[in-house]
Amino acid sequence: MHTLNKKRLITVALTCVTLIGRGRAFPFMFEKWGVIPTTGVSALEARSSGHLLADMASLTQENACRVSCFSECFHGVRKEHSFSWSKRLGFNRKCNYETLQVRATVSKIEHNVSSQDAGLATNGGKRKVTDSIKDEARRHGLLEPPTTFSAKYVPFSPYETTEEFYSLDEIIYRSKDGKLLDVQHDMKALKEYDGKYWKALFDSRVGKTTWPFGSGVWSKKEWVLPEIDNDDIVSAFEGNSNLFWAERFGKEMLGMSDLWVKHCGISHTGSFKDLGMTVLVSQVNKLMKMNKKLIGVGCASTGDTSAALSAYCAAAGIPAIVFLPANKISIAQLVQPIANGAIVLSLDTDFDGCMRLIREVTEQVPIYLANSLNSLRLEGQKTAAIEICQQFDWEVPDWVIVPGGNLGNIYAFYKGFVMCKELGLTDRTPRLVCAQAANANPLYLHYKAGWNNFVPVKASPTFASAIQIGDPVSIDRAVYALKNSDGIVEEATEEELMDAAALADMTGMFTCPHTGVALSALMKLREKNVIGPTDRTVVVSTAHGLKFTQSKIAYHSKEITEIQCKHANPPLEVKADLGSVMDALRSKLSLTL
Amino acid sequence: MHTLNKKRLITVALTCVTLIGRGRAFPFMFEKWGVIPTTGVSALEARSSGHLLADMASLTQENACRVSCFSECFHGVRKEHSFSWSKRLGFNRKCNYETLQVRATVSKIEHNVSSQDAGLATNGGKRKVTDSIKDEARRHGLLEPPTTFSAKYVPFSPYETTEEFYSLDEIIYRSKDGKLLDVQHDMKALKEYDGKYWKALFDSRVGKTTWPFGSGVWSKKEWVLPEIDNDDIVSAFEGNSNLFWAERFGKEMLGMSDLWVKHCGISHTGSFKDLGMTVLVSQVNKLMKMNKKLIGVGCASTGDTSAALSAYCAAAGIPAIVFLPANKISIAQLVQPIANGAIVLSLDTDFDGCMRLIREVTEQVPIYLANSLNSLRLEGQKTAAIEICQQFDWEVPDWVIVPGGNLGNIYAFYKGFVMCKELGLTDRTPRLVCAQAANANPLYLHYKAGWNNFVPVKASPTFASAIQIGDPVSIDRAVYALKNSDGIVEEATEEELMDAAALADMTGMFTCPHTGVALSALMKLREKNVIGPTDRTVVVSTAHGLKFTQSKIAYHSKEITEIQCKHANPPLEVKADLGSVMDALRSKLSLTL
Repeated sequence: MHTLNKKRLITVALTCVTLIGRGRAFPFMFEKWGVIPTTGVSALEARSSGHLLADMASLTQENACRVSCFSECFHGVRKEHSFSWSKRLGFNRKCNYETLQVRATVSKIEHNVSSQDAGLATNGGKRKVTDSIKDEARRHGLLEPPTTFSAKYVPFSPYETTEEFYSLDEIIYRSKDGKLLDVQHDMKALKEYDGKYWKALFDSRVGKTTWPFGSGVWSKKEWVLPEIDNDDIVSAFEGNSNLFWAERFGKEMLGMSDLWVKHCGISHTGSFKDLGMTVLVSQVNKLMKMNKKLIGVGCASTGDTSAALSAYCAAAGIPAIVFLPANKISIAQLVQPIANGAIVLSLDTDFDGCMRLIREVTEQVPIYLANSLNSLRLEGQKTAAIEICQQFDWEVPDWVIVPGGNLGNIYAFYKGFVMCKELGLTDRTPRLVCAQAANANPLYLHYKAGWNNFVPVKASPTFASAIQIGDPVSIDRAVYALKNSDGIVEEATEEELMDAAALADMTGMFTCPHTGVALSALMKLREKNVIGPTDRTVVVSTAHGLKFTQSKIAYHSKEITEIQCKHANPPLEVKADLGSVMDALRSKLSLTL
Repeated sequence: MHTLNKKRLITVALTCVTLIGRGRAFPFMFEKWGVIPTTGVSALEARSSGHLLADMASLTQENACRVSCFSECFHGVRKEHSFSWSKRLGFNRKCNYETLQVRATVSKIEHNVSSQDAGLATNGGKRKVTDSIKDEARRHGLLEPPTTFSAKYVPFSPYETTEEFYSLDEIIYRSKDGKLLDVQHDMKALKEYDGKYWKALFDSRVGKTTWPFGSGVWSKKEWVLPEIDNDDIVSAFEGNSNLFWAERFGKEMLGMSDLWVKHCGISHTGSFKDLGMTVLVSQVNKLMKMNKKLIGVGCASTGDTSAALSAYCAAAGIPAIVFLPANKISIAQLVQPIANGAIVLSLDTDFDGCMRLIREVTEQVPIYLANSLNSLRLEGQKTAAIEICQQFDWEVPDWVIVPGGNLGNIYAFYKGFVMCKELGLTDRTPRLVCAQAANANPLYLHYKAGWNNFVPVKASPTFASAIQIGDPVSIDRAVYALKNSDGIVEEATEEELMDAAALADMTGMFTCPHTGVALSALMKLREKNVIGPTDRTVVVSTAHGLKFTQSKIAYHSKEITEIQCKHANPPLEVKADLGSVMDALRSKLSLTL
């Protein structure tokens, strides 16, 4: 039992209130703290648990500051560990009230929930010259990394048990017998906290710049890389992407009232790959600080991966080595690694050739490999699923449609939704749909064949260039995710995907061709009424349309000969005089102006 | 005095707790509600004000639902208006407790603070086929628009008093004598709520999809367009953009520990113009629903404005008419209005020619004009300033640097910061810096001349194409903002701005040339030590780098002859064999691999 005095009891109550005021809120505090007055507290409620009283009249700015400090100390509290409030908080300097007791269950609250703010409040918004927001966070009780939670690599083998596992601090990409790896969390430790706790914790971190929790990925740090020091994290405050209500598209094109697009591509590097890359580069950063022999991070990429890798390596000052197939990617995609200072090798081969070469190189040189089989990245990508639930206030959508190429992402979404359910944040998981381009549809064919005998295909060119993959590395992960989520695979032809993207754009979006694939899948499933008119459906948009202006221009100028481009909207070349302009408007608006 | 029973009192307490659990929190509730037990409530606290008691044991899912409904009803509560809990809440169906009283100050709480959630909670996540999230919000107490707050157009004339004003429902762009307009809020009404109230309200809206508060702009609706019906709002959940800690750039390039970049360009249409356009198009949507004679919205634009206008008009189903100077804008910029279904007239003239023609057209045809003089847009843009304060947990940065062309944005930022201070959310305003391209620097020259006799210039081409403006429409607004914020104007040459952007990219950003101008201004002010090493400084980035890939490629291929391109990082063309690749890596990494 810890002793507190009345002042502190009031502060306990104020903690909640103040945290509320700052947009952070912890209902579990009320539930887990039993406040027991022992002497001379006539007006206070006295029960063994479950009651709380707050004297709001004493809420002053001074209290508020102290409370912020207080909340940070949760991080340092350990279970079955005697914890002195006064030592950490300096509250005893101001104590002159009756003594009360707080039940020991308070030690259940273990996380740091606050931020740099307390520090700023006490030194007028300035930090020392040598300080950074990281230093500041450290000073406020973050010195000890959380040791309660942990994760490790295990072989991805959901249908058999294995004793094989590896530390995340090892440099390893596959299991002994060549299986994919999976980051496995200590779910028992995570389950010591209930769903309400996790929801409150995650919700408390949204919308601020607290290092590193201002990031949508690192706001879920305990579920991503629980053991990394905050100081080692390389983050650009990624995530927290727009979940857009596609009102007109849903209503007018599909008769749907509850259609949403998760715009993961409205991001720092213009694609969803930021989510995974912040995790990978953070872990590499940690390994390099541990003096693991590494000279940089490399990838072979059709574009988005290299852009994300280069940006995060640039933020960390780690060399990024990028192998790109010459003349196979758009000008917008080439420029990102270059601008971010990566070592860009433009190779006269295709994606598979780049892949082969980087594997050979990493066998000879200590370059960390950042390609799609890397299981660390999936830990970041899965946060998009958690974020969707969070943005819906922890309601689970009925359907989530994800474009699929190398197929890591569909598994990452699955993993995120399952973790939310398993840890009590949600009560179900959505049905997943993987959408493939017909020109690169090995998973679709596998699905149609009743999941029998997967056969890779030779992928043909598709406008959805990032998913032009015939032999996806994460096939096993994807099949597992789809089987367990009552999943569906759909495909879209080039005409279908370009038309769907164009239609979506006409209703205010600016979609990439991969989103077109997903929207096209949605349209087919709506047509068959597999997806109902009121089903809450989320389409995952994986890249910003600005990365695909060339194919959009080609479509709207009807330069794509193989397809009709039936929604093309070319500009009108008009002479710069009022008469010509009015004529043009009359024709377009069909009006007598 | 309103009567409640014990059950209700408990529910009052639970309201707060439940809202906490959902990440919404309202400390003012505690402060403004006085809970007065009148009979048979032995264990409860009884004072005239400022006390609260919650029995957590009674927190059930049922309570939680009811509480959500309850919070929504605040919206309908009017000052000095008798308010029946039971009528709105249906609570009386379940009342069988002792009677209590709640002080009438409860009627101070006036806002809708909740969402679709209550509806979802009661019908299992499904809405009716014909329903949308808007309908749902309406059903839950949103039928009556808030009438407490209001705003109107007044001539922008800060140094003289005027009686002239116009309703926001009028179609008007300038005052009687040709002055710019300003949207003036009823500050007296807003001030009836203290800073704590506003902070809690705004913080409660972050990170969810509640219509329309999930938007960073509309989460500040009361300060933007208080009188618009939520149903008329056209939103893409804009805002809530990344406030990025520029760790490496600050530390390594400038010796700064507290440098931040507000990435307004990481957005739906790739520029900060979304913020203003959602407001303008929403108001036009309202006007059209009011049967004002309007056939669409038009603009003449160098790119970002037309992209934003087209996207929002597409979302609303309103015709957008875009005048663009042929061959003057990038391919990425042309494609957005086209894809979004706008009527795009490509005119063989320059920006001024487009501007002149659209003015002529709008005199003849009822097309709403969306150009930069429009004061509605500034109301949206100012939310970026509020958001910066919010993301820093309502700490005000020392400096905010904004690129300036037509100069509306610098005034919008000023207005946002001043409102925060005036309404008690913050205790000061930052010093503002307006950064101009040397090739289009009329404000800089005006500043250097001690603000005497403004002279427009003929702007020369600049890579920062969106600010290539010699005769800025918002000059008066900008001068006022800078004079009142102890402001500074800086300029950047083409070489300086491109180098600054390239350096920033090397540290993980992907900046547009306008951000280069702002960063360049920062570098100069740091060099002179005007901005100190620990000053918290925010650089406003106005567009996504993906909109400017061409100039980046030109820079990195050293194709820009007038400048050195000293940070160029061209790709290496390498043969696709291991030996050649290893040779290339050896040379780049200076290693004996």
